[in-house]
Amino acid sequence: MQIGMVGLGKMGGKMAERLRRGGHDVVGYDRDPAVSDVSSLKELMERLQEPRAVWVMVPSGPPTHATIEELGNLMSPGDILVDGGNSHYVDDQRHGAYLGTKQIGFVDCGVSGGVWGLQNGYALMVGGSKENVDRMMPVFDTLKPEQDGFVHAGEIGAGHFAKMVHNGIEYGMMQSFAEGWELLEASDIVTDVPGAFKSWRTGTVIRSWLLDLLVRALDEDPALEELEGYAQDSGEGRWTVQAAVDHAVPLPVITAALYARFASRQDDSPAMKVVAALRNQFGGHAVTS
Amino acid sequence: MQIGMVGLGKMGGKMAERLRRGGHDVVGYDRDPAVSDVSSLKELMERLQEPRAVWVMVPSGPPTHATIEELGNLMSPGDILVDGGNSHYVDDQRHGAYLGTKQIGFVDCGVSGGVWGLQNGYALMVGGSKENVDRMMPVFDTLKPEQDGFVHAGEIGAGHFAKMVHNGIEYGMMQSFAEGWELLEASDIVTDVPGAFKSWRTGTVIRSWLLDLLVRALDEDPALEELEGYAQDSGEGRWTVQAAVDHAVPLPVITAALYARFASRQDDSPAMKVVAALRNQFGGHAVTS
Amino acid sequence: MQIGMVGLGKMGGKMAERLRRGGHDVVGYDRDPAVSDVSSLKELMERLQEPRAVWVMVPSGPPTHATIEELGNLMSPGDILVDGGNSHYVDDQRHGAYLGTKQIGFVDCGVSGGVWGLQNGYALMVGGSKENVDRMMPVFDTLKPEQDGFVHAGEIGAGHFAKMVHNGIEYGMMQSFAEGWELLEASDIVTDVPGAFKSWRTGTVIRSWLLDLLVRALDEDPALEELEGYAQDSGEGRWTVQAAVDHAVPLPVITAALYARFASRQDDSPAMKVVAALRNQFGGHAVTS
Amino acid sequence: MQIGMVGLGKMGGKMAERLRRGGHDVVGYDRDPAVSDVSSLKELMERLQEPRAVWVMVPSGPPTHATIEELGNLMSPGDILVDGGNSHYVDDQRHGAYLGTKQIGFVDCGVSGGVWGLQNGYALMVGGSKENVDRMMPVFDTLKPEQDGFVHAGEIGAGHFAKMVHNGIEYGMMQSFAEGWELLEASDIVTDVPGAFKSWRTGTVIRSWLLDLLVRALDEDPALEELEGYAQDSGEGRWTVQAAVDHAVPLPVITAALYARFASRQDDSPAMKVVAALRNQFGGHAVTS
Repeated sequence: MQIGMVGLGKMGGKMAERLRRGGHDVVGYDRDPAVSDVSSLKELMERLQEPRAVWVMVPSGPPTHATIEELGNLMSPGDILVDGGNSHYVDDQRHGAYLGTKQIGFVDCGVSGGVWGLQNGYALMVGGSKENVDRMMPVFDTLKPEQDGFVHAGEIGAGHFAKMVHNGIEYGMMQSFAEGWELLEASDIVTDVPGAFKSWRTGTVIRSWLLDLLVRALDEDPALEELEGYAQDSGEGRWTVQAAVDHAVPLPVITAALYARFASRQDDSPAMKVVAALRNQFGGHAVTS
Repeated sequence: MQIGMVGLGKMGGKMAERLRRGGHDVVGYDRDPAVSDVSSLKELMERLQEPRAVWVMVPSGPPTHATIEELGNLMSPGDILVDGGNSHYVDDQRHGAYLGTKQIGFVDCGVSGGVWGLQNGYALMVGGSKENVDRMMPVFDTLKPEQDGFVHAGEIGAGHFAKMVHNGIEYGMMQSFAEGWELLEASDIVTDVPGAFKSWRTGTVIRSWLLDLLVRALDEDPALEELEGYAQDSGEGRWTVQAAVDHAVPLPVITAALYARFASRQDDSPAMKVVAALRNQFGGHAVTS
Repeated sequence: MQIGMVGLGKMGGKMAERLRRGGHDVVGYDRDPAVSDVSSLKELMERLQEPRAVWVMVPSGPPTHATIEELGNLMSPGDILVDGGNSHYVDDQRHGAYLGTKQIGFVDCGVSGGVWGLQNGYALMVGGSKENVDRMMPVFDTLKPEQDGFVHAGEIGAGHFAKMVHNGIEYGMMQSFAEGWELLEASDIVTDVPGAFKSWRTGTVIRSWLLDLLVRALDEDPALEELEGYAQDSGEGRWTVQAAVDHAVPLPVITAALYARFASRQDDSPAMKVVAALRNQFGGHAVTS
Repeated sequence: MQIGMVGLGKMGGKMAERLRRGGHDVVGYDRDPAVSDVSSLKELMERLQEPRAVWVMVPSGPPTHATIEELGNLMSPGDILVDGGNSHYVDDQRHGAYLGTKQIGFVDCGVSGGVWGLQNGYALMVGGSKENVDRMMPVFDTLKPEQDGFVHAGEIGAGHFAKMVHNGIEYGMMQSFAEGWELLEASDIVTDVPGAFKSWRTGTVIRSWLLDLLVRALDEDPALEELEGYAQDSGEGRWTVQAAVDHAVPLPVITAALYARFASRQDDSPAMKVVAALRNQFGGHAVTS
């Protein structure tokens, strides 16, 4: 089918390529004219046949919001828009309502797969009405891996909610491996730490793609000496914790993983200054209460 | 090679079978005469040619301790004993020292693989001197999976230490999936929760054997209605946390996963009684300090 | 000075009483005519001399929001409104902006003290412009305890933000005592647990009002047998965690205390069903990946 | 009564002084001849009348162990020894058994109070037989504060167990204040952070000696700029967590407080290197599984 792809960066560009290889007619727009098929969103609209289908693949937050707002003004009743970025599910609900007033269909789609997606397919979690999801199914079928890798998770927002939880689980799993590695390194009893991780790749309970990645990292740098213990967080981890607090769901592991990232970005722990201050006071003079 | 297998339960029995299929001469002993090749450890010793190799596969703690003590009195200088159970690495160090005084070699071996090991091989993490590990290598080669699945992790205790950390990581990973599931269920936005998990099996960062198992469990019981939220802990989780505390290593995720299991076994949280008591007091009468 | 008090419940009623004892002219309004001096907010406005001062003391969320909206329509430029409830600081900022468009002053005020406040004074944390805070100072001076117990914390929202953090700290402290008690009860080494808590009231690092309350609770029910391990959360704990996530501040202890309350309200842990399901699968049949 | 005091450091010296002021006949021994009344433990034994009472106040672990062992050889049946240091309750049980074989009585005593104890009294938590505790009661009565501050917690080990839990609670409370401070500092909404803490000293739920100390620290250094976010841990925190793990008691808050201290002593988080490594791998080349 014909589809407009808005945003041809690391993700959007490769997804457009996979769609073309799958026989779709992709018209791409990007702010960078070097990779763009058209010079503006307006021109993109003119190039697409009605009813149009547009896939938005730009950074979440203000860029996605501005793009959807502009497209809302350019698209026509009966068109459909897919947000394939990392939007917050709460934003999806706003965007769906906004487009709905203009009779433009909306589907939110969480995408996983990174740089391997072009070759192996992208896992897709989508939210929206059955009608709209069905309409986009030819595109989803081309993007997704050969088996599994697709769910129609629920109404608008459900796709990004599912992707958000996926990332929350990812935080917990990464931190699990990280803590195991730290303990092995801290003790001198295991002298072949990379070998231990490698041994776990087959026949164990924890075999996983993350373990494969870690083994590869340890192959390149066996004691991780080239790296700083510093990690950004991408938003989904925070949203997961906030959704949990909203729903009164205890999430100790995922939250601990998020907090470990927060702490990794501090040169010095502010909280620990208070602990140090209190410990100093223990040794001091009488406090009159 | 010839090997005596002590303990022919769910694990030991299948390992003996895999060794036999691999061409080894296995003489098995178990307290249950129905499965035992000999009637006593003493008879086992008589059946094995010196220098003997014995694999102990009995429950950790007192049973392993008693078995190793008895075998220490029956074996001869130059023999070798492998503890393939789930022993604490601290016990290994004691057992190694005890057997060392009798010039009996000792190797500790953490084994992963469960019921699939017979067919696919058992992941093995071993600790001991190079000489002793080399001597047992024909047995390890038969037991382990075709690729990976083996590490000589360090000196005595290193095998079980590595296995302990493996299990600690497993606790964290299981809890990560568990928390993600709870959040998806608590929100009504994702209406196909089992479908979300299934979609993650391909192309995502969290694809793993544990995810495969969870998808299978959800296939059988989509809302896990047949299950109670109750989990035992096997010892390795506790030892992991205790080793971390000994080494001043912060282990927030693995510890949270362990504590979640502790809490799951309480009908009512004792700590929360105190919180409830304090909240009641807020509404009460003046406290004279 | 003259002040209108909206909401004469457990908190508002006693605060009105303390203000009257302090010489202020308080006109009270409550939905319950039995305790109300006037029959409507409109009548309250008529009874107060301009420029009016009104203290709103109703439940946070929709009730406070509706009350402030209605008062905004009834009050005049130059009047001032204090929200002394447990509002979210984000709501304060909205309310301040709304009233600002009508030239009505706004101060948010977090209040601590509970049932002892009438006698001992209420700790007050206020947010707003210096001019508005100064204007209400006679009322704050009467309400607060003789020493300390008052801070002008910052601009609008700062009062409730400070109160929110106070409650977050309270969660952590309560849980600290709770965990200590659970450990003492779980071990049989300390046979006089209430006596241990009592001994800590003097000369120790942890002496505190919460400890005094706990000792009193243990006097009444030495093993807390009359209580269920169940605790509500009031909103401030959740807001504290959400503010921390917004600011990338790791808050492990306060969050753990909040999650312990969430968990205490679950009959059965949903997450633990997943752990149980995975453990069941370990013992099952081969999974084809 | 007559008592030998072994160890005249910061704690022992002041306790000896408080005992003398209370009318007791204290003979002190310290490795430092400048403060010692006798030149050796042997001479101390000669100076004390049988049945002797000796209070050991030396660092926990090997120093306490060595001192008790030596005293065990010098003391006579019917004598009594009190360990007032910070010993692990497990060591108490060993020491009690050792002295018991020599018919020497043993009492373990957790002591709180620090530098204020001389003036205000020391909170004492003791473990041992009723007979032995009663015998030392005149000394306990002099050392303890005027009211509360004493518990006979149980048999040998119970005193140090109670003190250990006291310190665990202290960790949680300190971290609660610390997290609250960090959040207030991270947000710019509260502009008078020291003022907020000061306001909480009266009329609030969190009023406590620790809060008083923190207010004093903030008086001296309002943004804690002179301090590094670094905190040692003294042993009791670790023992508390280990005891909890032994008893399957979930201790999320106290453990988080302990881990925050561990992390504060790391220049760079080893675990976070793994997270960083994994995140790097996401952007890399295909992994063949």
